[in-house]
Amino acid sequence: MAQRVIAGITMSLDGYITGPNDRPGAGLGEGGERLHWWVFGGPWTYETGARGDADPVDQEYLGSVFPTGGAMLVGRWMYEAAEGWGDDPGFGVPAFVVTHRPHPRVVKGTTSFDFVTDGFAAAVARAREAAGERNVLIMGGGDVLRQSLDAGIVDQLTLTIAPVLLGGGKRLFDGMQRLDTTFERTRVVESPWATHLQYRVKRRTGEE
Amino acid sequence: MAQRVIAGITMSLDGYITGPNDRPGAGLGEGGERLHWWVFGGPWTYETGARGDADPVDQEYLGSVFPTGGAMLVGRWMYEAAEGWGDDPGFGVPAFVVTHRPHPRVVKGTTSFDFVTDGFAAAVARAREAAGERNVLIMGGGDVLRQSLDAGIVDQLTLTIAPVLLGGGKRLFDGMQRLDTTFERTRVVESPWATHLQYRVKRRTGEE
Repeated sequence: MAQRVIAGITMSLDGYITGPNDRPGAGLGEGGERLHWWVFGGPWTYETGARGDADPVDQEYLGSVFPTGGAMLVGRWMYEAAEGWGDDPGFGVPAFVVTHRPHPRVVKGTTSFDFVTDGFAAAVARAREAAGERNVLIMGGGDVLRQSLDAGIVDQLTLTIAPVLLGGGKRLFDGMQRLDTTFERTRVVESPWATHLQYRVKRRTGEE
Repeated sequence: MAQRVIAGITMSLDGYITGPNDRPGAGLGEGGERLHWWVFGGPWTYETGARGDADPVDQEYLGSVFPTGGAMLVGRWMYEAAEGWGDDPGFGVPAFVVTHRPHPRVVKGTTSFDFVTDGFAAAVARAREAAGERNVLIMGGGDVLRQSLDAGIVDQLTLTIAPVLLGGGKRLFDGMQRLDTTFERTRVVESPWATHLQYRVKRRTGEE
């Protein structure tokens, strides 16, 4: 299998990928936890903490994506909002952080974070090289995912639709330039907490 | 079966239910035809006209909804944008148009349009009474559907996700007040042209 670039993100019914006021320490923003109920198999909040395991349906979906990854691409804001995914992110592959602010390399357990300051394309190139034959996984946030879609590098996008209304926050597609991007649905996964819509991403012009 | 209020609308991946500049004669706005490729079984434009039949999968979906209706509720803007659905809409049931501007009753073939000027609740009451044991179908547009959701009268909402980006237009949920509305997915229909996500609509407070 040739290397592919795979992205996935969870969106509310009203199109938000975070609630209002997402920031470091507040993860997905006000009410944004509900986007990720499917990740932990049910209701949780930043106060109670996320403790549960994903439903078997969601575990199967996650298992169809993450083990294929050889490197990750992530935005600086998301890195900060997730507080670096704690002491041991457990990604098992190198992650490349798109940023303007230099930061020394971070190594935590099996995960390394390299902060790439010479542009989005350079970060993509680093991740592609590190991934080798394996896939590049785009972790988000919205800016990096939108840049990736605009750059035409995304082969597969999974939009996970969480059945909630957030009423505010960040929208995935706001500011998207390449409206000629097309999406061919390849799979639907119905979990108790969300609906995963998997698309092959192309361009209407025939580019892939 | 008791009467239910059923709504359905097609939304782009970026959350638009029309393209930019929807208006009488331009239906769903610029590029908005792509929202309804599933209705006619493939690509069409307002220039070429819509001629084809829906894919059997979509026909089955439509057949699970429309024959259950005893009356329809529709907004005045949508009525105008659709130009009254032509000479013979073929609805076979009375339709009630929510409007501020009086208009005489219109009868076209098996379809009647009554223009209700004394408020949204009055129009709903008229539709409910006319539907009898059968369902009330909310045809849209966005304003009427959003009002219906805010009023808590919708029992079932089908969000049909068309795999396109419109980049502008009207958003279904902008201005929605009752963010405590919850959605329980009851069915997914995968057509070649779109994905129908059917939800039971409730309130988090336990109201239904």
